Amino acid sequence: MFDYHSHFEAAIAALRNERRYRVFADLQRQVGRFPRAIWRRDGQEEEVSIWCSNDYLAMGHHPKVVEAMRNAALTMGAGAGGTRNISGTNRPLVELENELCDLHHKESALVFTSGFVSNEAAISTIARLLPDCLILSDQLNHASMIEGVKHAGTQKQIWRHNDLAHLEELLKAAGKDRAKLIVFESVYSMDGDVAPIEKIADLADEYGALTYIDEVHAVGMYGERGAGICERDGVMDRIDIIEGTLAKAFGTLGGYVTGPAAIMDAVRSYAPGFIFTTALPPAIAAAACASIRHLKTSQEERAGQQRQAARTKEVLRRAGLPVMPSETHIVPVLVGEPEACKAASDRLMEKHRIYIQPINYPTVPRGTERLRITPTPMHDDQLIDQLAEALVETWLALDLPLNRPDVVDTAPARAQIFAASGG
Amino acid sequence: MFDYHSHFEAAIAALRNERRYRVFADLQRQVGRFPRAIWRRDGQEEEVSIWCSNDYLAMGHHPKVVEAMRNAALTMGAGAGGTRNISGTNRPLVELENELCDLHHKESALVFTSGFVSNEAAISTIARLLPDCLILSDQLNHASMIEGVKHAGTQKQIWRHNDLAHLEELLKAAGKDRAKLIVFESVYSMDGDVAPIEKIADLADEYGALTYIDEVHAVGMYGERGAGICERDGVMDRIDIIEGTLAKAFGTLGGYVTGPAAIMDAVRSYAPGFIFTTALPPAIAAAACASIRHLKTSQEERAGQQRQAARTKEVLRRAGLPVMPSETHIVPVLVGEPEACKAASDRLMEKHRIYIQPINYPTVPRGTERLRITPTPMHDDQLIDQLAEALVETWLALDLPLNRPDVVDTAPARAQIFAASGG
Repeated sequence: MFDYHSHFEAAIAALRNERRYRVFADLQRQVGRFPRAIWRRDGQEEEVSIWCSNDYLAMGHHPKVVEAMRNAALTMGAGAGGTRNISGTNRPLVELENELCDLHHKESALVFTSGFVSNEAAISTIARLLPDCLILSDQLNHASMIEGVKHAGTQKQIWRHNDLAHLEELLKAAGKDRAKLIVFESVYSMDGDVAPIEKIADLADEYGALTYIDEVHAVGMYGERGAGICERDGVMDRIDIIEGTLAKAFGTLGGYVTGPAAIMDAVRSYAPGFIFTTALPPAIAAAACASIRHLKTSQEERAGQQRQAARTKEVLRRAGLPVMPSETHIVPVLVGEPEACKAASDRLMEKHRIYIQPINYPTVPRGTERLRITPTPMHDDQLIDQLAEALVETWLALDLPLNRPDVVDTAPARAQIFAASGG
Repeated sequence: MFDYHSHFEAAIAALRNERRYRVFADLQRQVGRFPRAIWRRDGQEEEVSIWCSNDYLAMGHHPKVVEAMRNAALTMGAGAGGTRNISGTNRPLVELENELCDLHHKESALVFTSGFVSNEAAISTIARLLPDCLILSDQLNHASMIEGVKHAGTQKQIWRHNDLAHLEELLKAAGKDRAKLIVFESVYSMDGDVAPIEKIADLADEYGALTYIDEVHAVGMYGERGAGICERDGVMDRIDIIEGTLAKAFGTLGGYVTGPAAIMDAVRSYAPGFIFTTALPPAIAAAACASIRHLKTSQEERAGQQRQAARTKEVLRRAGLPVMPSETHIVPVLVGEPEACKAASDRLMEKHRIYIQPINYPTVPRGTERLRITPTPMHDDQLIDQLAEALVETWLALDLPLNRPDVVDTAPARAQIFAASGG
């Protein structure tokens, strides 16, 4: 007889050996105390500060958003009651999709229960519906996009991260008459760098390719109305399909795609991951809608985030900490080794009550293990100063190098780190 | 240049030609008015009765559930703030997983943002982690299980629906030493029939296979504490992995798997669809937890559903309507042709304000197109009588046959329908 148990035990042991085994912290966030949360372990409770949340603008705790959720729950209930087709197309969801069309200036929008599913379902379905489609995928695309590319079952080619010359080479080789889908992100969430969107759109026009951009780490946070980097850069109409999330800056749950009506209708009609799943509850849709509407006009949250992110980078750098180059609100601090990265995270929590989880391989390349810090508008100056002190204490205690000459905020230095790490 | 637009237009046109193009009704459910909802179209609003909801026990509108959602939203906010690893493991979610372990008497539980993802991620990951795993999948498994089987990338064999002899044949051929995963459902949602779980478990023991059961159309509704058909039949401990949903009888959103700690930990650690997605919001987890706890002790909802489902079958049959055989709460009424099925659904809505969406191919085999009716404890006797009248009026108006001798509630008749339809 086959011994199942030992195989699963071995799979877990392999992760432990590589120091990649993850233990989730049991946290309870508290409306009104953001970014603080209650941390529970061994029956004890303590308050900690969260420095790695993807609730980037604290909108998950915004009074308008919480109120919209509460009202929808009280009047329409806790769930949707079925798939979109089976009585699951609720009114707040219809309004949310209309709101997203308006946000991105696209003909149509489709909401999914997660950004992961929206990428997996949309990319695989779009490519599958085109004859002999070639998918051109940026090397650092998110796991959900990679799943979409895989499940399409069509040919794929990986272009080197943000490398326009390489992308053009592949487009040229494929020829103008072949169906091609370029998939990439606007903000890459582990490094905080940004894609050359306009130039990618130029290449797509020249070689006749469809473009699909993931803006999950940008929607709500960039552009005059929070539509993302494409809006900020004035190229929203140059990209065919824009994918986003409701679970990060908008503070709720779910993902979406927006684009031409025919493509959205095809995804709606052919993607199993859309068709055969219960719709988002009205309370979630209503909360997301309230959040998007607020961020369409309010600049306060975006300005606050940019200000506090810039200050965090500055304070940490002045303290000699190895802040990696980032063009955005993401503040990566290099450790460069998985055990030390885990140890730093543990010490920050145990000793300083600061929660920043370690980012190790395979999320980032080996040798670039890091702490990924995401300041929000609610991380005030005092919290930033406390963070810097705690990090320095941790760096000294773990004998990690300060004032590294190889980590400074210039493009060549950045290239150097990555060349050295094989990333 | 490749013409993208015309390809997507053609894909949509193909569905229209086959009468498989779906239009979603814009519905707004109302707490306190279940199963009624507001239907919006062309700027007008009307009240309709929903007869095809998967909120099987109306728990999505239960005061305890709504209250739990409201309280969690007000105190913990609208979203989780990140993946499970990135500060997304919220306290209500930890409690929910503990509750699910207790419900199914399993060592460990993992919650996902949907039942679809739980099946896709768990089946593909479990099979992938075993060397040369053979997946044995029931012919009528749900789309999400089929995606899981596909994405595993291992060998698969389909066994004829609920056919133990066929399953044994395949198990025997594979041999006792090979890793084998049997995946099946307890209640098949389109026909309402039930798997021979104990006998499948006997075969699994004899030939050394792992068993994975989908109980999404059973949890909350069967068994003394609502753990599903496995509990009802006293075989919960005979099945390795039980998958369920929080989005049907429990009235909220999300899916889960429960089973041995090592397997759950392996799925948690290796499944991209679990790792790289934002966690369920605390408000959803709290609402689901309240629902499960209530249904662990209350028999009222289960008894009410069984009573009203039996009455619906009886009243519809007496009216001469072709109620297909079903062992469960699901009441399928045969139409047998896609255009008539859509026309019946349209007429019920337009003329009778009754919402039952048509179930056409590929959800069911061609020739078995049907209306799938799901009575809940809240569909009272008067509503059932109105439904019967509306259906008879519709059947007469569309010239559909009443008193069909081929559709009666006996096993041979059932086999006959399926043999005739090629299903």
